[in-house]
Amino acid sequence: MMNIQVLSLFPDMFEGVFGSSIMKKAQEKGAVKMEVTDFRAYSENKHNQVDDYPYGGGAGMVLKPEPLFNAVEELVAQGKKPRIILMCPQGERYDQKKAEELAQEEDLIFLCGHYEGYDERIREFLVTDEISIGDFVLTGGELAAMTVVDSVVRLLPGVLGQEASHVNDSFSTGLLEHPHYTRPADYKGMKVPDVLMSGNHAKIEQWRMEQTIKRTYERRPDLLERIELTKEQKAYLQKLKRSK
Amino acid sequence: MMNIQVLSLFPDMFEGVFGSSIMKKAQEKGAVKMEVTDFRAYSENKHNQVDDYPYGGGAGMVLKPEPLFNAVEELVAQGKKPRIILMCPQGERYDQKKAEELAQEEDLIFLCGHYEGYDERIREFLVTDEISIGDFVLTGGELAAMTVVDSVVRLLPGVLGQEASHVNDSFSTGLLEHPHYTRPADYKGMKVPDVLMSGNHAKIEQWRMEQTIKRTYERRPDLLERIELTKEQKAYLQKLKRSK
Repeated sequence: MMNIQVLSLFPDMFEGVFGSSIMKKAQEKGAVKMEVTDFRAYSENKHNQVDDYPYGGGAGMVLKPEPLFNAVEELVAQGKKPRIILMCPQGERYDQKKAEELAQEEDLIFLCGHYEGYDERIREFLVTDEISIGDFVLTGGELAAMTVVDSVVRLLPGVLGQEASHVNDSFSTGLLEHPHYTRPADYKGMKVPDVLMSGNHAKIEQWRMEQTIKRTYERRPDLLERIELTKEQKAYLQKLKRSK
Repeated sequence: MMNIQVLSLFPDMFEGVFGSSIMKKAQEKGAVKMEVTDFRAYSENKHNQVDDYPYGGGAGMVLKPEPLFNAVEELVAQGKKPRIILMCPQGERYDQKKAEELAQEEDLIFLCGHYEGYDERIREFLVTDEISIGDFVLTGGELAAMTVVDSVVRLLPGVLGQEASHVNDSFSTGLLEHPHYTRPADYKGMKVPDVLMSGNHAKIEQWRMEQTIKRTYERRPDLLERIELTKEQKAYLQKLKRSK
């Protein structure tokens, strides 16, 4: 069973996400244990102060080292070597490969700051990984941590049922998905492509392969550089490029 | 006041995030109205079915067009032209520039699927924007929508207090932030750099500029290509490169 600990000053933020849908079921099934701890309890001063002014001046507050160092020390069970992950915009860009890597671990600890900066010593001496989910600014690391947890937990054995486990896994093939259609065949004049209703499976496979290449070429050409295409995919890509 | 509507099959997921911290305060201050609607109520069949098997076969279910088309039609107030945003891995990569763009809008509607694919007609005829927060797979669009909402709402006038508005805004300058330090000056032998305690503001500024360039160069050299550096920043970058 994977053991996930989150350190945050706003534990209430996690309730809805950790308590609904797949994340809830994953815990009920015993695939993962998820716990959120308010690290304010680990400050060493009587006002439970967790941040302070930056040395050298400047706007904004900085998270002090003691509360996070203390909390991690208490949370790490004897003999365990958890990944200790700092959510921050300066971190390594998160992707599906990293999700797969983290899904192999037994113990993950997430550190979430909340609009303050982190004292650099946390970065340098406490954490094993710094992760950013993208080039945008959030009010805190909480949503980033939830995002990483969600993407990791769904990969754990037994968590996803069969119907949930396939569609949308765009990044498992390295390409974007082809379009999907379901009933009705004609919705207010908007129609499903004929080929999908033809019953001709070879044609359907061909159409889906072409749409996958077309969509990836139009929207994310960078993905095409990173994987080895099949002979058929390459041929279609050449055709697409010539027709531009 | 900005008006945000979210359509999801798991409205409970949003409670913690929309009901805590800055998101809660933003609503109390009247900067934004946030509402989450379960679009299952807008299905047109007696079993409240929202998904169905894909035409052409294959694993996974596909979200039917009717519930989302119906829900959007009912939610859009007369005369309004909201941005209708589909959260999906095939979408445009989200970044701070997009956050700033969306923060100018009056009405945002987010559509969140949940491990199903979307019927292509939703993409083609209903939405104005498709957004992905990154190359990883989530159990649904909910966390992605919360992430976008958080990053947009914090930009709205009056939402962030002064102490929260500066630190961590890595992407407003286009570079990563320099390290921050706060008390204690010596934490179990881990020390704050002398320069920050020198009181010499010119030296401190110089150190911070250098650290900013160094961190960005080491971690995200791509960011250096995208912005115009000052003369001092350029000179320091040259020095760094020569010392490698």
